[in-house]
Amino acid sequence: MAAPVIGPEIDRLIQLLARLPGFGPRSARRAALDLLKKGETAMTPLADALTEAATRITPCSICSNLDTSDPCHICIDVKRSKAAICVVEEVADLWALERASYRGHYHVLGGVLSALDGVGPEDLTISSLIGRAADDDVSEIILAMNATVDGQTTAHYITDRLTDCNVIVTRLAHGVPVGGELDYLDDGTLIQAMKARRPF
Amino acid sequence: MAAPVIGPEIDRLIQLLARLPGFGPRSARRAALDLLKKGETAMTPLADALTEAATRITPCSICSNLDTSDPCHICIDVKRSKAAICVVEEVADLWALERASYRGHYHVLGGVLSALDGVGPEDLTISSLIGRAADDDVSEIILAMNATVDGQTTAHYITDRLTDCNVIVTRLAHGVPVGGELDYLDDGTLIQAMKARRPF
Repeated sequence: MAAPVIGPEIDRLIQLLARLPGFGPRSARRAALDLLKKGETAMTPLADALTEAATRITPCSICSNLDTSDPCHICIDVKRSKAAICVVEEVADLWALERASYRGHYHVLGGVLSALDGVGPEDLTISSLIGRAADDDVSEIILAMNATVDGQTTAHYITDRLTDCNVIVTRLAHGVPVGGELDYLDDGTLIQAMKARRPF
Repeated sequence: MAAPVIGPEIDRLIQLLARLPGFGPRSARRAALDLLKKGETAMTPLADALTEAATRITPCSICSNLDTSDPCHICIDVKRSKAAICVVEEVADLWALERASYRGHYHVLGGVLSALDGVGPEDLTISSLIGRAADDDVSEIILAMNATVDGQTTAHYITDRLTDCNVIVTRLAHGVPVGGELDYLDDGTLIQAMKARRPF
């Protein structure tokens, strides 16, 4: 057999890029070629950024956010109210809520309960959340899980675990998204929006 | 203003990932988080692969293929016939033809002529192709550009430039793709397929 046309160095780069979410073998090939065409000016900064992220970024021991410091800068931010902890599934959700101007504390679960995927309470950071909720400063736990079956199951489970803590448990409002057209909405959302209607 | 929620290290990683073709800001965020979640085991190999590719991969001075050696391993492969040179737009096309079991030599143009994008003959490796075609060993130039307007314009231009060389100029067959259904094909392809019909 002839030597493989793609050398081991390029092949390895493609294999590793293909592991990124959203990339398959074909798009990884395209990305690798694009990087190779642009040369060192494109590859070296990315390699450096990866090395720096790998060595310096760690999960916060309080809220599991990812940051260069532990506790993370959100947990040590004295300007943020300690009254509320917003519980999210992933760090991406924390970023989304920050973009939406929420300025309290967070708790990243690291996933949701899922019988199908074998994810139990001990795989998530639920115990440390219960510990945090027992703090006298904390008066509200905002459950901001995704509006999926697993997300809502996890929310119910956490609510049960929090019954002995002296906190109010709230969840994000469900309803018509801003800019949404009723005709295109699923029935579940419309039913929730109708149930939770408010004075105009 | 509060400190930005995404630290500069993560932000830089996202910015660089977002430059990859096929990635936008949102998918780059997702990829960065996925890498950060997996930690060093995912990031360090990718960083190393990028550094190695950046330092070791160069374009071949004969055919412009990308490889760790110059001339590339295809150009120095004595098992390959020197009679034919297959002209392609990009290295990705070379890889595609290798997968399709073509085992001759190649010439990577580095793009196509495009008045709109300001790409002229001097921006491509056309002159070095004419030089290679003048070699006595070479008897055929296979034009394997994409079947786009720019690709075919480039093919015509190269054919004109090759008139003084003692070579046959051929192009890939156009027609119904394998597995293709006539009803879904565009008229241009069907017209080409009908014109180029062959005895069964």
